[in-house]
Amino acid sequence: METGCLYGLGVGPGDPELITVKALRYLRAAPVVAYYAGKGKTGNALTTVQNYLRPEQIQVPLRYPVTGQKPPPPFDYEGAMREFYDEAAVTVAAHLDAGRDVAVLCEGDPFFYGSFMYLYDRLAERFTTEVVPGVCSVTASAAVLRTPLVYRDQRLQVLAGTLPEETLRARLAEVEAAAIMKLGSNFEKVRRVIVALGLAERARYVERATMDGERVLPLTEIDPENVPYFSMILIPGERWQGV
Amino acid sequence: METGCLYGLGVGPGDPELITVKALRYLRAAPVVAYYAGKGKTGNALTTVQNYLRPEQIQVPLRYPVTGQKPPPPFDYEGAMREFYDEAAVTVAAHLDAGRDVAVLCEGDPFFYGSFMYLYDRLAERFTTEVVPGVCSVTASAAVLRTPLVYRDQRLQVLAGTLPEETLRARLAEVEAAAIMKLGSNFEKVRRVIVALGLAERARYVERATMDGERVLPLTEIDPENVPYFSMILIPGERWQGV
Repeated sequence: METGCLYGLGVGPGDPELITVKALRYLRAAPVVAYYAGKGKTGNALTTVQNYLRPEQIQVPLRYPVTGQKPPPPFDYEGAMREFYDEAAVTVAAHLDAGRDVAVLCEGDPFFYGSFMYLYDRLAERFTTEVVPGVCSVTASAAVLRTPLVYRDQRLQVLAGTLPEETLRARLAEVEAAAIMKLGSNFEKVRRVIVALGLAERARYVERATMDGERVLPLTEIDPENVPYFSMILIPGERWQGV
Repeated sequence: METGCLYGLGVGPGDPELITVKALRYLRAAPVVAYYAGKGKTGNALTTVQNYLRPEQIQVPLRYPVTGQKPPPPFDYEGAMREFYDEAAVTVAAHLDAGRDVAVLCEGDPFFYGSFMYLYDRLAERFTTEVVPGVCSVTASAAVLRTPLVYRDQRLQVLAGTLPEETLRARLAEVEAAAIMKLGSNFEKVRRVIVALGLAERARYVERATMDGERVLPLTEIDPENVPYFSMILIPGERWQGV
């Protein structure tokens, strides 16, 4: 029997219409649809494509053991995640071994900070695998914020808000254009760095860009206690004065 | 009379199926479709969507005065480009003033190094404008190269091959993950920097990712005289060993 094909499908940033024609075609054709989600949650990827699914498709949730704030040691976060990804790979491989194609839903793009990468690293050598790129949250946020992001030979840096304050400060000190992802509980730290570097006038904030509940707020008006993980600060490149 | 709406539509990296459902819907609804192209050329954006267009749509080519190698001084490149974008804005505005919506085709994403940004900067204050993000060449190249691009809190740098050698060297000296765009005649310089920094093993090259004529080649086998503008080097982030 032939084994199934593994698809990593970028479903885009949240608006169901921001999926590509190709990802939609593969999604609708797949007998099995796998998706990551927290315990008891639907997850953003499934929410995005829910209206495209057919009732006969087998849905396979891959449930993160931890979401949000990491439990403090002695909890072994990396060990728990490794075990989780190992089990997820076994679950997905069982369908592939049985000859069923599996579409794994990926928020944004599969290879851009995506959980799919850990499945890919475990399964791509054993199974035929195809990755369909998707619209990532960085460019989606620029569209929502109505701001051109990078001009000509400007460098774009994509940074995680989880970085230590000193690292963020060093990287943003020489900023031309930047996107700072994974804010959540890191927001206050990131804002402090931005203000200290005199970048507050240029920085733009959006949460849940293109999803339900999307909000654009001035940097000064954000309650740091209530910043979702799916939020982003952009520092757009300065307009090219030449033209 | 109401003026028309300006749409900046990301059409994705080249594969016609990598357009989003939303961009396709707006594209097919627009009475006027504008696109950038070199003189006598169709251009990649139009090529990408050609099979989606309806015969009754008005096609408006915006022809770059210069493509490829810049003419040497005394030719005023920036002056010529400024004049070109001014004229392009006048051309598009005429349709908008006449009440016709205009869809401007954008390779990749409209706000990610796109020529659309110069129209946006000239017209967005006068006309209702909507930007639809697209799959950009960076993530499309990662999918074609079958390589996860960035893990966890790694920094992704997007760099232009047009930068001076010393600048490229400084930026890549501290690389975690990088995409180097706009190679073309800059290829040999970029390769020199990569080899000097000991990054040759990690660097991956693709040209015309997802378009007709796509090619993946080892860095050592590339003829620097024949590197197209639509080519890219990725230095993927190192696999997270934790999981």
